Amino acid sequence: MSSNQLDKKSEAWSALFSEPMSELVKRYTASVDFDKRLWQADIDGSLAHAEMLAAQGIIGEADRAAIERGMAQIRQEIADGRFEWKLELEDVHLNIEARLTQLVGDAGKRLHTGRSRNDQVATDVRLWLRGEIDGLAALLLTMQRALLAVAEPNVATILPGFTHMQVAQPVSFGHHLLAYVEMFARDAERLADLRRRVNRLPLGAAALAGTSYPLDRERVARTLGFDGVCQNSLDAVSDRDFAIEFTAFASLVMMHVSRLSEEIVLWMSQNFAFIDLADRYCTGSSIMPQKRNPDVAELARGKTGRVYGHLVALLTLMKGQPLTYNKDNQEDKEPLFDTVDTVRDTLRIMAEMVEGIVVKPEAMERAALRGYATATDLADYLVKKGLPFRDAHEVVAHAVKAAIGQGLDLSALPLATLQGFHASIGEDVYAVLSLAGSLNARQVIGGTAPEQVRRQVARHRERLGAAG
Amino acid sequence: MSSNQLDKKSEAWSALFSEPMSELVKRYTASVDFDKRLWQADIDGSLAHAEMLAAQGIIGEADRAAIERGMAQIRQEIADGRFEWKLELEDVHLNIEARLTQLVGDAGKRLHTGRSRNDQVATDVRLWLRGEIDGLAALLLTMQRALLAVAEPNVATILPGFTHMQVAQPVSFGHHLLAYVEMFARDAERLADLRRRVNRLPLGAAALAGTSYPLDRERVARTLGFDGVCQNSLDAVSDRDFAIEFTAFASLVMMHVSRLSEEIVLWMSQNFAFIDLADRYCTGSSIMPQKRNPDVAELARGKTGRVYGHLVALLTLMKGQPLTYNKDNQEDKEPLFDTVDTVRDTLRIMAEMVEGIVVKPEAMERAALRGYATATDLADYLVKKGLPFRDAHEVVAHAVKAAIGQGLDLSALPLATLQGFHASIGEDVYAVLSLAGSLNARQVIGGTAPEQVRRQVARHRERLGAAG
Amino acid sequence: MSSNQLDKKSEAWSALFSEPMSELVKRYTASVDFDKRLWQADIDGSLAHAEMLAAQGIIGEADRAAIERGMAQIRQEIADGRFEWKLELEDVHLNIEARLTQLVGDAGKRLHTGRSRNDQVATDVRLWLRGEIDGLAALLLTMQRALLAVAEPNVATILPGFTHMQVAQPVSFGHHLLAYVEMFARDAERLADLRRRVNRLPLGAAALAGTSYPLDRERVARTLGFDGVCQNSLDAVSDRDFAIEFTAFASLVMMHVSRLSEEIVLWMSQNFAFIDLADRYCTGSSIMPQKRNPDVAELARGKTGRVYGHLVALLTLMKGQPLTYNKDNQEDKEPLFDTVDTVRDTLRIMAEMVEGIVVKPEAMERAALRGYATATDLADYLVKKGLPFRDAHEVVAHAVKAAIGQGLDLSALPLATLQGFHASIGEDVYAVLSLAGSLNARQVIGGTAPEQVRRQVARHRERLGAAG
Amino acid sequence: MSSNQLDKKSEAWSALFSEPMSELVKRYTASVDFDKRLWQADIDGSLAHAEMLAAQGIIGEADRAAIERGMAQIRQEIADGRFEWKLELEDVHLNIEARLTQLVGDAGKRLHTGRSRNDQVATDVRLWLRGEIDGLAALLLTMQRALLAVAEPNVATILPGFTHMQVAQPVSFGHHLLAYVEMFARDAERLADLRRRVNRLPLGAAALAGTSYPLDRERVARTLGFDGVCQNSLDAVSDRDFAIEFTAFASLVMMHVSRLSEEIVLWMSQNFAFIDLADRYCTGSSIMPQKRNPDVAELARGKTGRVYGHLVALLTLMKGQPLTYNKDNQEDKEPLFDTVDTVRDTLRIMAEMVEGIVVKPEAMERAALRGYATATDLADYLVKKGLPFRDAHEVVAHAVKAAIGQGLDLSALPLATLQGFHASIGEDVYAVLSLAGSLNARQVIGGTAPEQVRRQVARHRERLGAAG
Repeated sequence: MSSNQLDKKSEAWSALFSEPMSELVKRYTASVDFDKRLWQADIDGSLAHAEMLAAQGIIGEADRAAIERGMAQIRQEIADGRFEWKLELEDVHLNIEARLTQLVGDAGKRLHTGRSRNDQVATDVRLWLRGEIDGLAALLLTMQRALLAVAEPNVATILPGFTHMQVAQPVSFGHHLLAYVEMFARDAERLADLRRRVNRLPLGAAALAGTSYPLDRERVARTLGFDGVCQNSLDAVSDRDFAIEFTAFASLVMMHVSRLSEEIVLWMSQNFAFIDLADRYCTGSSIMPQKRNPDVAELARGKTGRVYGHLVALLTLMKGQPLTYNKDNQEDKEPLFDTVDTVRDTLRIMAEMVEGIVVKPEAMERAALRGYATATDLADYLVKKGLPFRDAHEVVAHAVKAAIGQGLDLSALPLATLQGFHASIGEDVYAVLSLAGSLNARQVIGGTAPEQVRRQVARHRERLGAAG
Repeated sequence: MSSNQLDKKSEAWSALFSEPMSELVKRYTASVDFDKRLWQADIDGSLAHAEMLAAQGIIGEADRAAIERGMAQIRQEIADGRFEWKLELEDVHLNIEARLTQLVGDAGKRLHTGRSRNDQVATDVRLWLRGEIDGLAALLLTMQRALLAVAEPNVATILPGFTHMQVAQPVSFGHHLLAYVEMFARDAERLADLRRRVNRLPLGAAALAGTSYPLDRERVARTLGFDGVCQNSLDAVSDRDFAIEFTAFASLVMMHVSRLSEEIVLWMSQNFAFIDLADRYCTGSSIMPQKRNPDVAELARGKTGRVYGHLVALLTLMKGQPLTYNKDNQEDKEPLFDTVDTVRDTLRIMAEMVEGIVVKPEAMERAALRGYATATDLADYLVKKGLPFRDAHEVVAHAVKAAIGQGLDLSALPLATLQGFHASIGEDVYAVLSLAGSLNARQVIGGTAPEQVRRQVARHRERLGAAG
Repeated sequence: MSSNQLDKKSEAWSALFSEPMSELVKRYTASVDFDKRLWQADIDGSLAHAEMLAAQGIIGEADRAAIERGMAQIRQEIADGRFEWKLELEDVHLNIEARLTQLVGDAGKRLHTGRSRNDQVATDVRLWLRGEIDGLAALLLTMQRALLAVAEPNVATILPGFTHMQVAQPVSFGHHLLAYVEMFARDAERLADLRRRVNRLPLGAAALAGTSYPLDRERVARTLGFDGVCQNSLDAVSDRDFAIEFTAFASLVMMHVSRLSEEIVLWMSQNFAFIDLADRYCTGSSIMPQKRNPDVAELARGKTGRVYGHLVALLTLMKGQPLTYNKDNQEDKEPLFDTVDTVRDTLRIMAEMVEGIVVKPEAMERAALRGYATATDLADYLVKKGLPFRDAHEVVAHAVKAAIGQGLDLSALPLATLQGFHASIGEDVYAVLSLAGSLNARQVIGGTAPEQVRRQVARHRERLGAAG
Repeated sequence: MSSNQLDKKSEAWSALFSEPMSELVKRYTASVDFDKRLWQADIDGSLAHAEMLAAQGIIGEADRAAIERGMAQIRQEIADGRFEWKLELEDVHLNIEARLTQLVGDAGKRLHTGRSRNDQVATDVRLWLRGEIDGLAALLLTMQRALLAVAEPNVATILPGFTHMQVAQPVSFGHHLLAYVEMFARDAERLADLRRRVNRLPLGAAALAGTSYPLDRERVARTLGFDGVCQNSLDAVSDRDFAIEFTAFASLVMMHVSRLSEEIVLWMSQNFAFIDLADRYCTGSSIMPQKRNPDVAELARGKTGRVYGHLVALLTLMKGQPLTYNKDNQEDKEPLFDTVDTVRDTLRIMAEMVEGIVVKPEAMERAALRGYATATDLADYLVKKGLPFRDAHEVVAHAVKAAIGQGLDLSALPLATLQGFHASIGEDVYAVLSLAGSLNARQVIGGTAPEQVRRQVARHRERLGAAG
């Protein structure tokens, strides 16, 4: 579209149209307010297209040089905040193209040869998203390293492991944090998988059917670092799978963040007091002078909703759409952009905050002692003395009942009392009833025994590299 | 919170804090970028609070006067775009309060007496939403009137009624449009219902527990036009039902819009060509000179996803939150704001566009003739001649099969041919096989007979009043 | 549709069809497995329809009597579990109709006069849902009464009120429970509102356009207890708003349940130990002998996802559907049915469980003492001694810091120490620093002062009536 | 858990419990009604566990043999429908274990050594899902082959390509179908990717912390065909990522199905009449004798909502859950099971139906002629004659306007008329204005030229193999 035409748009689209677009429609359909963030991808894509057009002899060398010169200036103008974005030029593509034609004349008008906004926007979004994916991949590493940095010195720190929020068995706090490392590692796997599906070039599909110009699509793909070209022009302009798949990935990341945040909020609560956060990650209250709130973790948990919502928005958007391009698709951008922003900001701040966690091992250990966390160990002890597990389980239930009655932990019951529940219990039971004894016993791969946890730390260290 | 304290926030919250908030945290948790749209509600709420504080003797008359003076100036500054919003002051509340204290000194510091940001923000959002609800109620009327304006002259225009997108029976185009009037009328009912639940005053709940100052909450409610006060302080600061209920209402509105949009897009397609839209509601293509696209309807359909997504975001946000206020709740605003904007802009533009619909009755009638739309009428005719419906159904199936074979409508078959299917068929069958005959026969309340449709038009006219 | 035709369905639909339905299609499209739960509504609707047909002279008295007799027998057969549901008869409607025709012959064939499955199913679902709504309304009362029964004896029981899961201010445990009464009361309001929109009669819309038989729709509406008739036949057969609005209501109920469940799970955790649940609401572990898990609350919280999901399913279903009836709509039933089951079972069990809560006031009070919950009261005390609130806030922050250092509550600091922070502090400060003092001070409407809470209890008692 | 204990469950869990579980709780928390479908995975997992326990010397050879013998009998009983599932035994695991102990006594009691239901259920679900994934992978191939089978003979069949549902440019119908092949191919890629994350063994994590028995987890993984073991016991029992990732994959599949279904429904509509479906995939109407409805495509489109809903259910379920196992997680099964069923049944029936599509090339071509589909080709023609594209675009707009006025296609305008718009137009323009000429011109990779489409068909044939 030439700038002439663009100038005329305030009047009408073409001779077919008898009146200009309504002002309301102009505002309702314009996207430049949000899609201008694609400007770098748009310029990069245009330069690769121009380079190929020239190589194929579709435009001349001089035109190509003019386009490069014009784009260099536009790049600078935008970077400097001097570029004037115009709502009446609808979107980032027309804004940049109109300015280019203003700067370099006819060469600018030739840039759009063999291209349509339908394949152009799909290319821009993929290029932009690919860059963001690489940034997020790095942040997922940072996040894992941050967790590892706290896990490593806490391999032998004892935490009450909960199921149903009831004290279950003692676990290593380091082990607990490594559970999150596993989650974010899976997220990173998924991100690498989906990147392959993002990194395919739609350009060349034109409006929907391909073009009659002898384009070299694979050359453009190589120039832009795409892994290959989209093999069907109709699919190329109407496919938004990559945006949905990315948002589904992001939903899982945020779900993991929400679980970690939930725990941080609980651990910071006075009823747990398992950790403290550095003051710079807390907020106070204008009313209550004693308050130190873990706002960041709460807000991160809350932002989970936002990303889930974007996933639903995109799925709804594409449901039942006939091929090929429909204007509905313009709605793909804001949910995708906000998803990227949310995940990036959240991972960055969570990684920083996690590294600043102050662990309070005494509080954790005290809590582990509160819930008869070694009752299972006592049952196992009795099994080794020859009882069937079921009977052992019942003996221990009686012992726990008695201990609750006296307000004592099992390990605080005198030997005579314990023997009252079963005669086979000996002095050696106290080793079994200790938290550390319980921990050390769980030597299976992936178990909470500090030795096992140390192996996992080493594995992750190797996998994640030195930095962080 | 005094402006002193606000100034100190770049350092630390209070003596309890040993370091200032991290820059990252400041940006992550600040809300002023989006919550500044609450400024009018915030000022109105503060003025009502100050008026009551003075009436109760909690602050002096002079303080109250100073607050009013300061707020008048702030209102002007914001309206003029001269107000300087500061990220480090977090939100709209602290920005306005800090400026007030700058302008009127100690009186400004006294405004926050017996109030916390927890009840303040809940009050602001409700006040603002109530105003938007009233605007949307008016737009729902406008939308219904626009549909009515097209329905009325088309009471007797014949459209093929579809089930399963297969021609079913002829219907009045006016009747078809009135189906949408029913939908938007239900939306308006829901909006009126939920307004009652929005319009309750949280102010006075303070941080969570109420306050020790002798506030007169009912006076504030009266001043601000609330129907009553929230009766439980803990609920008052943590309730976001109203935002969810509103977004659910909005999802239904957008669902209705998506159905209407789908039909407009189809009707505009060359394969239907049932209607035309004014050029000012269409867009062209930079590539394909023949294109006139119904972009507005497509985009409206696409925006359904956005609103559904916001509903999911808010439901997710509140799931499993322990009482009372958690920072997660800050995430209630952007989905709610965008929902309001989307529904408002969409209703406005759809109503305008609908009124500009150009009806093409010949195309509609031609299409109605294509699908053997009066086959049911023939079956009914045979029933009246004494056949059981089942046998009549089968006779007509044979007739339709023959008509398909000859590429003719039932009404184009010669009498002799028809009598070949059943001897009881007479010359009077042709009246039954006509589209108008079929239409007129459906005289039940809510049926498609033009007479019935006219009654509905009259009912809606009365209900909706004169305007529009 | 006669049973003859139904018998033929294994061959083909009619003369138009050259082959029977594929087996795969038969299973994919059949709904009788789940829609048979509508049987009572289907029979009731048919009886009302037959009564009107006879009154209008469309069928004879004898036919009507035969239909009543046949339906009485079918009702008994189904109730006794003797009725044979057939997949090849697709749905509940055809199953019952085929049996009726088997039992009473031609009269059964005449029942479907002026009716289509499109308006029949819409009527059945609304009738059935109305009954469920009335059941749920009663359960919402039961739930509120159960909360009230625990709140009333705990009006003066002190709980640490949390914001951000940090101890904020002491609150009454009764007051806390009344926050949930408010939530469920709002749910009940919403249910009453939406019932009006459910309770409108679609019957008479026939396939989509109304019918040529002189039906008396308002008579049927009266017989079935509907508030009125759907005024537009196209809307009547395609409207599923009522299912969506109901599911949105249910999502809010489950969100409230999820919050209450989250708190019950936390309160049961050893780190809180604020309450205990009767053994009959707990589960043990096959491995860990000490475990007593609050499974019911966890599962209820988990079921929130299910209901949210159903809401999304229904919204997605209706998005972009052109009028009128499309087969997509068959998918409305399972989400709706499961939503009703989930909310009903959950409210029933939660109400029962809540009444069995054993409150542990000492643990609550101990926790309230842990978090400097009366720091705000000390600041207020200083304000009354003449300090500006901001300065008072800072003085208290210093005092809290010192108290933390010594591991003591503010109220445990000697007067001399307190006076070190500000000279104006006197012996009377200890009354202010007490939890009870703090509670009693919050006398505003909706505040946590026991006197206020008692008033709310009385208000709810009156509103909810005697039972429960 | 021994069957003794299981017997006692109707009384109480253990000595700790003073009363049996409430009946309501029993029904609310039981899962055997739906999780019994895991029975094969449960038995397979148990056998692999027993084999390893014996190999490690934890149980004796005789016990192992007894377990195998018992399990063989149970397998037969379930396959024969003779197994008696008991609600009071809660779930599939306890039902099978209780029966095993009944059959083989103490050996059965030893099976659960070093195992908990927490890791057992996670293992079962993964094993079961892996099998379903392999079935779905095959169905995705079948689906692609079905599309290919229709695409291949229609490589040169001309369809109007739509953007905005407006005729845009002629495309090959084969090309159009290949767009769907691309979609399902991407789905297959995603399925292969996620299978790797499903196929990891949780067993050995025990309740949460690992176990003190010397298990050989990697042996079990090898026996069961897992790619490896979960490396963190806490993560192993609480991870449901795989269920969510699978449901996100399924949502994309259903979204693609919904697009194809939408098109099939439109193409079957009389206003398009582009295709016909075999009678066995259509349904009739009990009222309207002429009806042949594409119910399957509509229902498939409707089922999209169900799967989206399940994704939301699972995401909601996991949001904010603290580690490790919580009872909420029991809610993972029904959404997952129904998602698998829905996608499997839908792919199976859609593949079958697609192969039965009858193409109506004349109708497609007629429609392509209606929308000035070669207007872009005329503009390109003028560019080759030397006009700037913009001017060419405007010339064509004038020509289209005139053609609309005369109700003719561009190719039907006499040369003199065309030359009136631009003198450079010659006789050769008619080749350009033909649909076939337009198609053939689009020779770019992925373009719609039949030669290109044939290449794609060949590529897919090679990729998909011979079958189908």
